[in-house]
Amino acid sequence: MRQSFLKIFSVFLLTCSVLAQSMLSDKTLMGFSAENSTRQRVLEQKFDALLKKENLCQWMKRLSARPHHVGSPYGKENAEFIASLFKSWGYETNIEQFDVLFPTPKTRVLEMISPEKFTAKLEEPNLQEDSTSNQKSEQLPTYNAYSIDGDVTGDLVFVNYGIPADYEELAKRGVDVKGKIVIAKYGGSWRGIKPKVAAENGAIGCLIYSDPKDDGYFQGDVYPKGAWKNEFGTQRGSVADMPVFPGDPLTPHVGSIKGAKRLALKDAPTLTKIPVLPISYSDALPLLRNLGGAVAPENWRGALPITYHLGGTSAVKVHLKLEFNWDIKPAYDVIAKLTGSERLNQWIIRGNHHDAWVNGADDPISGLVALMEEARAVGELAKQGFKPKRTIVYAAWDAEEPGLLGSTEWAETHAAMLKDKAAVYINTDSNGRGFLGIGGSHTLEKFINEVARDVIDPQTKLSVLERRRARQMVDGSPTVKKETKERKDLRISALGSGSDYTPFLQHLGIASLNIGFGGEDGGGSYHSIYDSFDHFTRFGDPNFDYGIALAKVCGRTTLRLANADVLPFEFTNFAETIGQYVKDVLKLTETMREETDALNQMIKDGSLLAVQDPKETFVVPKPKTNVPYLNFAPLQNALETLQQSAKNYQTATKDKQISPEAQKQLDKILMNTERALTRDAGLPRRDWFKHQIYAPGFYTGYGVKTLPGVREAIEQRNWKEAGEQIEIVSKTIENFALEIDRAAKLF
Amino acid sequence: MRQSFLKIFSVFLLTCSVLAQSMLSDKTLMGFSAENSTRQRVLEQKFDALLKKENLCQWMKRLSARPHHVGSPYGKENAEFIASLFKSWGYETNIEQFDVLFPTPKTRVLEMISPEKFTAKLEEPNLQEDSTSNQKSEQLPTYNAYSIDGDVTGDLVFVNYGIPADYEELAKRGVDVKGKIVIAKYGGSWRGIKPKVAAENGAIGCLIYSDPKDDGYFQGDVYPKGAWKNEFGTQRGSVADMPVFPGDPLTPHVGSIKGAKRLALKDAPTLTKIPVLPISYSDALPLLRNLGGAVAPENWRGALPITYHLGGTSAVKVHLKLEFNWDIKPAYDVIAKLTGSERLNQWIIRGNHHDAWVNGADDPISGLVALMEEARAVGELAKQGFKPKRTIVYAAWDAEEPGLLGSTEWAETHAAMLKDKAAVYINTDSNGRGFLGIGGSHTLEKFINEVARDVIDPQTKLSVLERRRARQMVDGSPTVKKETKERKDLRISALGSGSDYTPFLQHLGIASLNIGFGGEDGGGSYHSIYDSFDHFTRFGDPNFDYGIALAKVCGRTTLRLANADVLPFEFTNFAETIGQYVKDVLKLTETMREETDALNQMIKDGSLLAVQDPKETFVVPKPKTNVPYLNFAPLQNALETLQQSAKNYQTATKDKQISPEAQKQLDKILMNTERALTRDAGLPRRDWFKHQIYAPGFYTGYGVKTLPGVREAIEQRNWKEAGEQIEIVSKTIENFALEIDRAAKLF
Repeated sequence: MRQSFLKIFSVFLLTCSVLAQSMLSDKTLMGFSAENSTRQRVLEQKFDALLKKENLCQWMKRLSARPHHVGSPYGKENAEFIASLFKSWGYETNIEQFDVLFPTPKTRVLEMISPEKFTAKLEEPNLQEDSTSNQKSEQLPTYNAYSIDGDVTGDLVFVNYGIPADYEELAKRGVDVKGKIVIAKYGGSWRGIKPKVAAENGAIGCLIYSDPKDDGYFQGDVYPKGAWKNEFGTQRGSVADMPVFPGDPLTPHVGSIKGAKRLALKDAPTLTKIPVLPISYSDALPLLRNLGGAVAPENWRGALPITYHLGGTSAVKVHLKLEFNWDIKPAYDVIAKLTGSERLNQWIIRGNHHDAWVNGADDPISGLVALMEEARAVGELAKQGFKPKRTIVYAAWDAEEPGLLGSTEWAETHAAMLKDKAAVYINTDSNGRGFLGIGGSHTLEKFINEVARDVIDPQTKLSVLERRRARQMVDGSPTVKKETKERKDLRISALGSGSDYTPFLQHLGIASLNIGFGGEDGGGSYHSIYDSFDHFTRFGDPNFDYGIALAKVCGRTTLRLANADVLPFEFTNFAETIGQYVKDVLKLTETMREETDALNQMIKDGSLLAVQDPKETFVVPKPKTNVPYLNFAPLQNALETLQQSAKNYQTATKDKQISPEAQKQLDKILMNTERALTRDAGLPRRDWFKHQIYAPGFYTGYGVKTLPGVREAIEQRNWKEAGEQIEIVSKTIENFALEIDRAAKLF
Repeated sequence: MRQSFLKIFSVFLLTCSVLAQSMLSDKTLMGFSAENSTRQRVLEQKFDALLKKENLCQWMKRLSARPHHVGSPYGKENAEFIASLFKSWGYETNIEQFDVLFPTPKTRVLEMISPEKFTAKLEEPNLQEDSTSNQKSEQLPTYNAYSIDGDVTGDLVFVNYGIPADYEELAKRGVDVKGKIVIAKYGGSWRGIKPKVAAENGAIGCLIYSDPKDDGYFQGDVYPKGAWKNEFGTQRGSVADMPVFPGDPLTPHVGSIKGAKRLALKDAPTLTKIPVLPISYSDALPLLRNLGGAVAPENWRGALPITYHLGGTSAVKVHLKLEFNWDIKPAYDVIAKLTGSERLNQWIIRGNHHDAWVNGADDPISGLVALMEEARAVGELAKQGFKPKRTIVYAAWDAEEPGLLGSTEWAETHAAMLKDKAAVYINTDSNGRGFLGIGGSHTLEKFINEVARDVIDPQTKLSVLERRRARQMVDGSPTVKKETKERKDLRISALGSGSDYTPFLQHLGIASLNIGFGGEDGGGSYHSIYDSFDHFTRFGDPNFDYGIALAKVCGRTTLRLANADVLPFEFTNFAETIGQYVKDVLKLTETMREETDALNQMIKDGSLLAVQDPKETFVVPKPKTNVPYLNFAPLQNALETLQQSAKNYQTATKDKQISPEAQKQLDKILMNTERALTRDAGLPRRDWFKHQIYAPGFYTGYGVKTLPGVREAIEQRNWKEAGEQIEIVSKTIENFALEIDRAAKLF
């Protein structure tokens, strides 16, 4: 489901000199004694030598040969194929089945009734250059999963990306979407936000299209000439209200296993409130071309050869009719275990989903085949006598695309066990040519920097860390450049949502990482029938070099975590990062205060109205409530405590060895630190999301909100709740600091 | 010729409270005694009452009824018509003729030879909705004046706006234009820069087209539905190398009167070096669609429904053939004088051109009719007994469009007299609905603020100054907002070029102002056959309300300058502005140093290459010479002196009266202060441009360069010259300060 590599992993950095770091590669590895470091390095060399890119190519061809969405015959075949391989590599393997709600389209009609008749094709044609694009009988039609059924007719309004700020702009221009159908561009938020916000504003239907500015000829040559979306390409995808909870909409909080308590369809809170349909830009063009009303603001306009208007004037009337088969379908997670030799109750879990929207060569097979090759090599090492200290679990999730169902149901089913045993979850998804991107728990930031330092980029012979760092130094914003130059470690991004780490990190509080390469692999095939082997091997990662690089990064990550004497968690980077987040919310409040004051002043003194063109409609917005001064002291004090604890732990552990028994005790504390960042009551209005530091945004979807309770209360101008959430997150951070103190005492 | 109001007048500001200023309108006017202030205000009320918008409408209809470019029969008729009106209003009027080089097209052929055959239409069709668009026999075809003849065939390369930075980007991508034909978008610089830079880079031909992103459907509905350029609209215009010198290319420095020494055509330095042709976006589309090579950088791409490629790969071969009639044509300046009653040798000159590229309702008639109505009212006041203290001269220039020929030749012809008599030149050009824009000499900044404070905006009932200020407070950048809030006066912009003030300000050193309204008048008709009465009265200023507002602003400006007891020059604003410019060049040097160091570092350590996609061509640029530390001390010292002198003058003159005889002496000093900012030797490599503070950019054209000698030397990395120019401009500023000191001594 992972969309754009670059959008998700956007903030990073690295140390000053590119070369200085490389020299460190002989240093002792984090969590290892000097002796065990050397042993581990030898193991990693063996591991590298086992990796074969032919396997990635062959498996991708096999797994993407036919459409394999959840519930499809080929999806089941794939699960069985993957399981059989894991078994053959020596893993204790089983397939866990979950029965989940998965609607598929029965009726899809989109027509323009006036000013001219037009019936949308809603069809991605077969291309001669793409050998799997003709598998019409098995392909899922273009649709958004978890849209409700609906039959609506109304005037059309163009709402840009359809996020809350866009509706403020519309209101200023006197445009209302009540009783109307909106058309939004893909992008600017996770797609599920668009119908949610549209419905909140009174719209009765929602179309989402891929504008060629964002995903089409404006970006580059279109498929099959180039990688980008052609005029018929359409992005399928889930529109469930995932920021409330992911997974099966009928079984929040519990696994959708046999006998699970299921909500009635009508009570499922994450289904959309209005019907939603994704369309191509060739289907959107006739609608948009006919729109009347004001010209859209400049930054709303796309790359279609028209003047973008807002509509809402009865110029364009459309009819949208959608009906779905509301079936329960089986989802098959493949779980493969290699039991640890010594700390078998500490699990390192490594996952990637296997289901796709259609053939899904890129999403998710490009990541999955890297995971499989990693697992094969680890299995091979085990056959040669290697025993990991901790238990390694490989997972190939089903039903990620409709909303992380395979991973979520598994995590919910095994919640108690996982809270007890899971040390770290390592996720991958799509992968392509380009630059390393890492998101995850900042307690693992130093560790993953060390890993990335030790893998060589296939195109440049720099380490993948160095190439990433160089990218930031060359193309970063001034702020990113400065940080890259000055900060020792590459800053990893915080995780929002969009792939299978969410149930582990944000529901269970398991420290997680999400890793992938990209940025030179073009776009455009995402969730369309053109995400195929042919497309991927021309534009994605033609030689699977970056698939191998991913296997090397994730293999090292898994093996080091599995073998370390002590789990390589580290807290000064985490504390520094929390310091950034605290600074962010302080700054956010300050900026909102200034902007509110400035806006209210312009409303009051009439200047806002005075500068408007009187020939255009302009509705002066209501003044906003003033931004009060919030008591951030608890948060600042908690931060102080955290930073002190992190420092103390660093000092306490420096060059110290502890007994194997103490190591085990320490591990137990360390692996539970992330749990300390969660709160059983969860976030306001979404108790499934327990993590107090990282969450997907309630109005951004994939996009992360750090310190979400506090930040979103401020953004929503809920000052009372902001105050309460400051207390809550401060307490959470203090509890976390206590855990660090406990750990430090073992030395 | 004035293009976009907003682009030219981009930096402004105003005092803190909108209302506070209005209260000042009873205060004594700058340059007047309290008693004379009151008298002047009465006069201005009478003046306002005389203005009739019906006149503007009627004259525009008359003057734009047929094409009236220089040398056309209707152009001559217009000159005679204008002269007859001035005479009827009581002005001593004559028409001065200059014989100037004005090429018109004989042959225009543009064909694509491969990969497909296409012949460009080069034709703007007649529209039923536009009653003058069918005057085919009198319309000048679409062309760029002062392109040389040429017959060239070559591969096509897309060069973005065709400015020097664009060629650096091309070089990085391994694209060379040597022996090729370039296609550049209109915008980003004055059009004449594009063929100049193309030729410097070895190109053999140049096409310039209007991309719909900048001037077409992306901006708004196209003509006739809306104001913007339709697919056939084409921007004519001069491509002479005006930053070297404007005016007749054959008579630099001297008036092109009978017997003037004329260069041979082959020796005329400001003609282009390669043939140039402007085309519409419908003619550009087939060419651009076929281009191969790398995809253009994101910010180069326009709004055509294609992937923009750089070309240069032999994918597209074009043939361009241009031949011109290299005729000498008569240009007719109308000069109308109202001799002053007391200081008749102090001239206030007020001008607007009358020639157009075709019908030119907006450019220039919208400004001209406001000038005419102003002159009519002043004439009427004179008939009622009003005698201006100083001489007022109204001018309607011919041949502005091909390169400020009418004004330049007149200024050159009468240079000695003008240097002796001209106090201020006030220019207008196109005018439309919207916001006041002012550019000019900063010695007049305080004065013109006072004028703008006293004229009411026709749409909002705020003063035009207040509405402009509100605009900056609402839509300005943070810097502009801050300055608007904090600085007492609206900051007027510095003048580059693009209209008839250039010979007065930058060649002769006459303090100048350029004034106009715009920003709500749409665009798109510029230099096309669609710049018509029909277009203007639908989209420009339908009721001529802003024409009247312009007459009020400029009428007050003229009348106050003509009647003031002492010319209202003021130096603290000027000194503060120079302080900004000094800060700018210091900052420029600092930024260049940092960027140079960062770039050279990235080249040296290999990171610049490491982040490139190895599948794309990338040529590592050569390291740049380091930016040395320049001795800015002379400039800083001169600034200090200037600021002190300005303050002294302010103190010396505060609430002081001097005798009428001393007033005359003072005036003589004041009107010569701008002369002190010029230097006979002019700027390096362009001795026609004498002004040391303001000049059009050598590589930007219209865009101003302040402290041009210093700034451009730095930009061109000519460190030796930068040092020399610092000395020169410092000396100039010191001499200017001495003039202020001389003035202060009269009190």
